[in-house]
Amino acid sequence: MKIVIIGGVAGGMSAATRLRRLMDDAEIIVFEKGPFVSFANCGLPYFVSGEISQRDALLVQTPESLKARFNLDVRPFHEVTAISPATHTITVQFNGQEQTETYDKLILSPGAKPFTPPITGLVEAKNVYSLRNVPDLDKIMTGITADTQQAVVIGAGFIGLEMAENLKKRGLDVTIIEKAPHVLPPLDEEMAAYVKNELLRVGIHVYTSDSAISFADAGKKIVLESGTKLTSDLTILSVGVQPESSLAKAAGLELGLRGGIVVNENYQTSNSDIYAVGDAIIVKQQINQQDGLISLASPANRQGRQVADAIAGKKQLNRGSIGTAIVRVFDLAAASTGLSERSAKLAKLPVAVVHTSGKDHASYYPGASDITLKLVFNPITGKIYGAQGIGKKGVDKRIDILATAIKGKLTIFDLPELELTYAPPFGSAKDPVNMLGYVAMNIAEGLSESVQWYEVKDQLSKGKILLDVRNPDELAQGTFPNSINIPLSELRERIKELDASKEYIVSCQSGLRSYIAERQLKQHGFTVKNLDGAFALYHTVLPEELKYV
Amino acid sequence: MKIVIIGGVAGGMSAATRLRRLMDDAEIIVFEKGPFVSFANCGLPYFVSGEISQRDALLVQTPESLKARFNLDVRPFHEVTAISPATHTITVQFNGQEQTETYDKLILSPGAKPFTPPITGLVEAKNVYSLRNVPDLDKIMTGITADTQQAVVIGAGFIGLEMAENLKKRGLDVTIIEKAPHVLPPLDEEMAAYVKNELLRVGIHVYTSDSAISFADAGKKIVLESGTKLTSDLTILSVGVQPESSLAKAAGLELGLRGGIVVNENYQTSNSDIYAVGDAIIVKQQINQQDGLISLASPANRQGRQVADAIAGKKQLNRGSIGTAIVRVFDLAAASTGLSERSAKLAKLPVAVVHTSGKDHASYYPGASDITLKLVFNPITGKIYGAQGIGKKGVDKRIDILATAIKGKLTIFDLPELELTYAPPFGSAKDPVNMLGYVAMNIAEGLSESVQWYEVKDQLSKGKILLDVRNPDELAQGTFPNSINIPLSELRERIKELDASKEYIVSCQSGLRSYIAERQLKQHGFTVKNLDGAFALYHTVLPEELKYV
Ligand SMILES: Cc1cc2nc3c(=O)[nH]c(=O)nc-3n(C[C@H](O)[C@H](O)[C@H](O)COP(=O)(O)OP(=O)(O)OC[C@H]3O[C@@H](n4cnc5c(N)ncnc54)[C@H](O)[C@@H]3O)c2cc1C
Ligand SMILES: Cc1cc2nc3c(=O)[nH]c(=O)nc-3n(C[C@H](O)[C@H](O)[C@H](O)COP(=O)(O)OP(=O)(O)OC[C@H]3O[C@@H](n4cnc5c(N)ncnc54)[C@H](O)[C@@H]3O)c2cc1C
Ligand SMILES: CC(C)(COP(=O)(O)OP(=O)(O)OC[C@H]1O[C@@H](n2cnc3c(N)ncnc32)[C@H](O)[C@@H]1OP(=O)(O)O)[C@@H](O)C(=O)NCCC(=O)NCCS
Ligand SMILES: CC(C)(COP(=O)(O)OP(=O)(O)OC[C@H]1O[C@@H](n2cnc3c(N)ncnc32)[C@H](O)[C@@H]1OP(=O)(O)O)[C@@H](O)C(=O)NCCC(=O)NCCS
Ligand SMILES: [Ca+2]
Ligand SMILES: [Ca+2]
Repeated sequence: MKIVIIGGVAGGMSAATRLRRLMDDAEIIVFEKGPFVSFANCGLPYFVSGEISQRDALLVQTPESLKARFNLDVRPFHEVTAISPATHTITVQFNGQEQTETYDKLILSPGAKPFTPPITGLVEAKNVYSLRNVPDLDKIMTGITADTQQAVVIGAGFIGLEMAENLKKRGLDVTIIEKAPHVLPPLDEEMAAYVKNELLRVGIHVYTSDSAISFADAGKKIVLESGTKLTSDLTILSVGVQPESSLAKAAGLELGLRGGIVVNENYQTSNSDIYAVGDAIIVKQQINQQDGLISLASPANRQGRQVADAIAGKKQLNRGSIGTAIVRVFDLAAASTGLSERSAKLAKLPVAVVHTSGKDHASYYPGASDITLKLVFNPITGKIYGAQGIGKKGVDKRIDILATAIKGKLTIFDLPELELTYAPPFGSAKDPVNMLGYVAMNIAEGLSESVQWYEVKDQLSKGKILLDVRNPDELAQGTFPNSINIPLSELRERIKELDASKEYIVSCQSGLRSYIAERQLKQHGFTVKNLDGAFALYHTVLPEELKYV
Repeated sequence: MKIVIIGGVAGGMSAATRLRRLMDDAEIIVFEKGPFVSFANCGLPYFVSGEISQRDALLVQTPESLKARFNLDVRPFHEVTAISPATHTITVQFNGQEQTETYDKLILSPGAKPFTPPITGLVEAKNVYSLRNVPDLDKIMTGITADTQQAVVIGAGFIGLEMAENLKKRGLDVTIIEKAPHVLPPLDEEMAAYVKNELLRVGIHVYTSDSAISFADAGKKIVLESGTKLTSDLTILSVGVQPESSLAKAAGLELGLRGGIVVNENYQTSNSDIYAVGDAIIVKQQINQQDGLISLASPANRQGRQVADAIAGKKQLNRGSIGTAIVRVFDLAAASTGLSERSAKLAKLPVAVVHTSGKDHASYYPGASDITLKLVFNPITGKIYGAQGIGKKGVDKRIDILATAIKGKLTIFDLPELELTYAPPFGSAKDPVNMLGYVAMNIAEGLSESVQWYEVKDQLSKGKILLDVRNPDELAQGTFPNSINIPLSELRERIKELDASKEYIVSCQSGLRSYIAERQLKQHGFTVKNLDGAFALYHTVLPEELKYV
């Protein structure tokens, strides 16, 4: 059999190596338009700061090593310019020459390309870059000279934030512009607020709900929609990616959502001898069965291996994806899996959320640091839609556990049952993930009712009273306007100070003590809800609503 | 309702606080024989080295804080000496006085006590300690004086290893004695070998398959079964724990395996008004439904909360445990979940195992360190029985993911489907857990056949040939006797050097390259198996079988 692969990186090369392990006698040719195959796209940003100092470290395999180890015919600098399904041939450009190549099976793994927004003056700009591959990286490195001081990053998604971090670490003054109301749009606003604060802490300038509308002076000047004018020596355009599907389109293959290639459960496109994987394809979001586009390396690698299995005769391998992502932003990690609150609501699912804060390991053991977790779930069935986490350490672990729980169709009622490693340096007897389950169960079972951070202002203006059960020494961080303060430990004696005809919202630092207060008050006949995430979350996302002495 | 709880720590106090949140008007009394309640047992060893420097940090709650916050009647120094189920009363000793207390519901969470082996001279020994609570810790701290130089730890389980580490960090010369053939008996031998090497690396003396048979000179001299004589200034006895069930036994409650208290799915003992949780009860091992004893804080805390729910009217809360544990041994973490290979084989399950080694995060990003994982599974159904992991970083995460997978009844075929957080500082596009799934699937599907480390010697003696596909520069670490070396990258050209009438075992460093060689050779008609875990594992567990130049 002769198998031709278009695209020699995550999906394409994973397919090629697995195919060789399954079919030693197959002819396998990999066409890659760029100079390199099998490179670590995900490592590119870290070369900018020098954190990854060897460019070679980014090259996982070379055509030579792939030939020796796998007998693969790997052809860099070869761009496939047309596919002819009828004749089972493709047209290839190499060195200005056009070649034709036949195939029995064709695998497309062309990836996704940076989306280019229509900004006036973009064509004339000389200092605007996007980052997808090693040549792009080389251009950026050449663009950074001794005179480069101001960098502007347009788009605060995962790649934008990584570029901002690495440019800053390289010593540049960095400004981020994001069109959405908050940085890291895949996360919900209040979780992204932690990331914004971290960016501000390190001195990055952040503009949200704003976008670049024109470049002037060959890109040196940027005008934002708000009218703000910025100077830039180096601009990174990272406003998202789109499926690289022009070849597939021209070949008449069925496309779907935002131009993604449609494939079936064996990764076959609308032409059964042409398969596709990776960033270019449409995936089923496993949680709500909707179509989605996911540009992440883990699914691309898996799909690459699976398409090889499909060609070798295994069936029904493509089960879809849930989408799990993480980014480091200076000292913080921000991660998510599955659906956000926003996307679950857009999908019209019955949604509840809880926020908890805990420590990455036992608080009595030195070095424990905060982890803020959010769980998005169905309050009736307990089905887990998604989760998000923020913290300095251990966020990857908690989101991975939750991603695994989702894949295992565990519900919120199962989270407390998880038996996770616990010794003081590693976790807690009740891990933050167990705790998330308890808190969610209390909501689902009606033991606790919550108010979300975005509902507080309105509810207080309608006459609810905010009861703050923190200790007096904690109030210096800020207080809710018109709140009353009774520390939890005094609440039992001072309960008579409360007016049972009023409705209360209780808050503390994390929501734990206020939940205890809520339970106590509820059992004494009060109408009371707990502020989910409590002061800590509110202070992060709406600091301007608080009073400070 | 009046609820009486015996034991005021992990299980008991978790029950008390949850009960209060569910039944604000219940009378709740907690009897604790020791001076402290709600303390961090698990943190005790770390006080010995000073890593945890404040003794107060170990006291999570006090009777006063529990009174103020939860209106609990907590009575330290109160030992319950008898239970009379017929009259619903208990007898309590306090300050030399005997009291009687009635109950509607009684919860036992008395924990487990250190097992004391019958060693001659133990009674006369003045320097032998075990560690279960704060008074024990205080005794050990008093026992360590300026003259204390030699410490001996008898028993190399989790607590023994933690004590060895902390005594060593405190500056003592430490010797460990373990009766089993290897340290950390809950792990399998070859995984425990990494821990042993780490102990030796830091200068701890380790005796395995040996035990203390007598103390002399008030404990200063220890004679081992092997005849070895040791000197000890301070001896820690940590040979395991047993359920603290004498009270339950005297009250006529049904006991089972090794004296553990039998409970039903609502944590009721054989007397329906008496409940029990924690280290003292028998749990169903969820994987094989056998009775087990698990002395870990996470189950104890969960059971404590669940018994409160049971008393408040929820049903069928006790689903059993899988048992997940971790220990830090100097720079390494060693963790396990579910069944070991040994226990799965003892349970007569159909068992296969695979060993992999990977990195905690992308190898091209600085600071990546090794993780060795072992998966124990059913090669026909793919059911996961258990997993073990060793490494400097990220072991807790992988074992937690696998523990979650087990709870979600995911099989080896689902492990590659897990979408785990990946950015260079946190993971890999194919996480070690995904990889474990691939390797196990290849075994289950017959794409790969493996030889285990303990089978090599025998198979080679029967005429198999060991083909080592490492590169020449790797051979300096050691080689298999009578092996032939053809680097993987040369195998395709040099395949004719092999004799197709012979049977081969292939090895490389981790098993990855030798698997690629195996696939290639199999497809060329050779009879060949892969050495699971390859040189790295073999070198760790059987270094004496290798040749060194
Ligand atoms: C800067 C950056 C950082 C990233 N960080 C992360 C991260 O931290 N975590 C994560 O999970 N993912 C990350 N990703 C995404 C991840 O790299 C992709 O999801 C993954 O590489 C997709 O694999 P693929 O095979 O679909 O496409 P790619 O790996 O992009 O490979 C496609 C290849 O096809 C070639 N090609 C396209 N058309 C043709 C043609 N007509 N002829 C010949 N060749 C062609 C392209 O040149 C390209 O090399 C990052 C991506 C980038 C760019
Ligand atoms: C040194 C050490 C380190 C540990 N490290 C870890 C670890 O890293 N990870 C982990 O998961 N687990 C660890 N554990 C185990 C964990 O602490 C236990 O599993 C857990 O505490 C069990 O909870 P429990 O409520 O059953 O018993 P305990 O927490 O032991 O509480 C039982 C209490 O009952 C009291 N009691 C007993 N009988 C009576 C009576 N008749 N009257 C009144 N009071 C009575 C006892 O004094 C005791 O305080 C460790 C234990 C020790 C001792
Ligand atoms: C590396 C690359 C060429 C794929 O090569 P590969 O040989 O398929 O993958 P790996 O080197 O990870 O090896 C995995 C194989 O070894 C096997 N293996 C791994 N450890 C093993 C062990 N200890 N014992 C036996 N087999 C083992 C696996 O089962 C798998 O084989 P299978 O697919 O047949 O089951 C491709 O993924 C690539 O080009 N990656 C770089 C680009 C990229 O991914 N970019 C995005 C992220 S930055
Ligand atoms: C601490 C101890 C007294 C239990 O107290 P507790 O109040 O039940 O437990 P926590 O302080 O962890 O709080 C958990 C409660 O707060 C709730 N909670 C936690 N975070 C919350 C948040 N952000 N919002 C709302 N509720 C929250 C949880 O749902 C849970 O309540 P629930 O059980 O009613 O669902 C008991 O576990 C103990 O004594 N521990 C020390 C001993 C020990 O465990 N030793 C072994 C390990 S070293
Ligand atoms: Ca508490
Ligand atoms: Ca490889």
